[in-house]
Amino acid sequence: MATANAIVAQSGGPTAVINQSLVGVVETLRNDDRFGKVFGARHGVAGMVADDLVDLSSISQNQLDLVAATPSAALGSSRDKPDKAYCERIFEKLRDRDIRYFFYIGGNDSADTCRIVNEVSDESGYELRCFHVPKTIDNDLEKNDHTPGYASAARYVGLAFMGDNLDNRALPGVKINVVMGRHAGFLTAASALMRRDSEDGPHLIYVPEATFDLERFTRDVQEIYSSLGRCQIAVSEGIHDADGQAIGAKLISGEADDHGNVQLSGSGALGDLLAEHLKKNLTAPAGQKLRVRADTLGYPQRCYPDASSVDQEEARAVGRFAAETAMRGDLDGSIAIQRAAGDSYKANITVVRLTDVAGHTRHLPEEFIVDGRNISTAFANWLRPLAGDLPAIGRL
Amino acid sequence: MATANAIVAQSGGPTAVINQSLVGVVETLRNDDRFGKVFGARHGVAGMVADDLVDLSSISQNQLDLVAATPSAALGSSRDKPDKAYCERIFEKLRDRDIRYFFYIGGNDSADTCRIVNEVSDESGYELRCFHVPKTIDNDLEKNDHTPGYASAARYVGLAFMGDNLDNRALPGVKINVVMGRHAGFLTAASALMRRDSEDGPHLIYVPEATFDLERFTRDVQEIYSSLGRCQIAVSEGIHDADGQAIGAKLISGEADDHGNVQLSGSGALGDLLAEHLKKNLTAPAGQKLRVRADTLGYPQRCYPDASSVDQEEARAVGRFAAETAMRGDLDGSIAIQRAAGDSYKANITVVRLTDVAGHTRHLPEEFIVDGRNISTAFANWLRPLAGDLPAIGRL
Repeated sequence: MATANAIVAQSGGPTAVINQSLVGVVETLRNDDRFGKVFGARHGVAGMVADDLVDLSSISQNQLDLVAATPSAALGSSRDKPDKAYCERIFEKLRDRDIRYFFYIGGNDSADTCRIVNEVSDESGYELRCFHVPKTIDNDLEKNDHTPGYASAARYVGLAFMGDNLDNRALPGVKINVVMGRHAGFLTAASALMRRDSEDGPHLIYVPEATFDLERFTRDVQEIYSSLGRCQIAVSEGIHDADGQAIGAKLISGEADDHGNVQLSGSGALGDLLAEHLKKNLTAPAGQKLRVRADTLGYPQRCYPDASSVDQEEARAVGRFAAETAMRGDLDGSIAIQRAAGDSYKANITVVRLTDVAGHTRHLPEEFIVDGRNISTAFANWLRPLAGDLPAIGRL
Repeated sequence: MATANAIVAQSGGPTAVINQSLVGVVETLRNDDRFGKVFGARHGVAGMVADDLVDLSSISQNQLDLVAATPSAALGSSRDKPDKAYCERIFEKLRDRDIRYFFYIGGNDSADTCRIVNEVSDESGYELRCFHVPKTIDNDLEKNDHTPGYASAARYVGLAFMGDNLDNRALPGVKINVVMGRHAGFLTAASALMRRDSEDGPHLIYVPEATFDLERFTRDVQEIYSSLGRCQIAVSEGIHDADGQAIGAKLISGEADDHGNVQLSGSGALGDLLAEHLKKNLTAPAGQKLRVRADTLGYPQRCYPDASSVDQEEARAVGRFAAETAMRGDLDGSIAIQRAAGDSYKANITVVRLTDVAGHTRHLPEEFIVDGRNISTAFANWLRPLAGDLPAIGRL
């Protein structure tokens, strides 16, 4: 190939470091004279089919560095999950602009888009290099030890639980915090990041990989509330019963008939319903007034501007690696972070097949889940090197 | 007086810097040889009457420094609002231990406790020096430019809105964030901290000092959603209608009859109800799907471990100043932060009368409120020097 054009886009829920990966791709490509234009598509695949592009070839490095350090997706994002017909439209747009390199930063749906676009280009005989650059706060991509975006979200969740645990220690009661991650418990498990001993919360952690039993939950909370005088609880938004029914939906149908239109995701409903349930079923320790509160941690989990420094570096490195891999001649793949064996933390960046990642969901390994209601110390040890500098905790 | 004992306690909702004030008091007193013991009472006035004390005289300075930098109240806090009988019990406990100095770190209720205890000691002829050390994320103390704890909470709110605004820009829709502060709008106004131009959210800010009209709110949101394609909204948990009725309660009674037991404070209910209302009454801009989400920022506002450096220093200084003022011979008072005139920011720490602060609520000045639905740039300029180092924002 003589000079070629490239395009990069961002997809799915934003993270605190997705712009690092964007800049990693862009700065690597445009420093190579085999490239003509490096385009960014606004709002992911939607901008690709709508010709809503921005030329990233000549933006100053200073500006790129500033964008890299800024949370959320600077190009805009998209929730579209393209089928084959949609991908054919994408492909035509790429061919029209003589684009030979396509980088899509996102989760397993984005890997699937890369896979289908790659299939379409293969069928047409047009040489297009398609790379998926990983991003997700859920950490649910197969073949990865962890994904860019997860460590910063985990840092936020860990620090929020640390502050909230100290708050709960100062004004005792039962406190529920609902954490993102519908299908994978990695982010909810990150609530254990700053825990130092058994007195520290969270005292109970419920992930979607374990079946949630409301009666057992109530007993678990009562036991800790009675013995410690307080109880901090981490709950995944995706907790469900043995039949797979979401607990929020179950609480609604069990307790009030005409709440049917309450939305469970992106709302405080699950936490509020669990708090209402506990208020009716718990007994306060002697001398205490029953006090139950719930917070739903919300969007700050994915975009609060206090990213992990390790996550920032790795997200940038993953973007650069994608560009280098494509320039080296590889035709397609998904970039992955794996962990090197050894006592001190080291990440290996590699490339895996699109089909290994596309459409699959990785779950929190069973070995980290303790008795269906807690997370092991081994998990916190696995997480700690990813989370960046962490504060010390002083107590009286 | 020969050697005297002192006691210090913490009250009300914890903040990210209340331990700085605690340590400021303790380190100043114990370095003076006029002091015997410096006690801390666990859980505020509750620990004072229950003799639940900790001797802070001999803890290492390293340990104190670590405690100072840790969020929440290290001694534990209390929601008790003592009446005169309660204060008489406090006074007796103080006299029994030959305690001549009492420092109470908290909001306007804590100032009132100091006032009553001081009154009781005056009546008995026992020389007791009673000082209130200010603390509140609400910034609602009279005679103060701002109070320790507010700047860190304001920093959190400002940064959370910054990240969320960029998130909303990436995935457009209507986003409501509910902010703490039942009666004073200072913390909700802090949502404007990182706003740079009119494209940046929050596009609408509703504080409790302005009457909230649901129909006008709906029109306001529709106007911005139609013109910008998105709308980020800051709402105080304390918004109310012209009759003083809380909007959450109004939405519940207006829309569903048997939700009576839903708790509005410490829950996601207000945000969820406003979101439900908007979903039924908004029209999405052409080509967009209607998307409305709500978050309730919750306890991370008061205890997320990323405090403002200015707030940390001022909270420490206020504690030291309280101890110095008492040692100088003053008998009672409330410490206050005022702002020196001039172009560059400078705080003056002073002492005011307990009765000037006790039981009063300061409100957001009207001059900062724009048209009942926004906050002026002058407010952000007032806030910025308090918030510590702030991140730069890069965009494409």
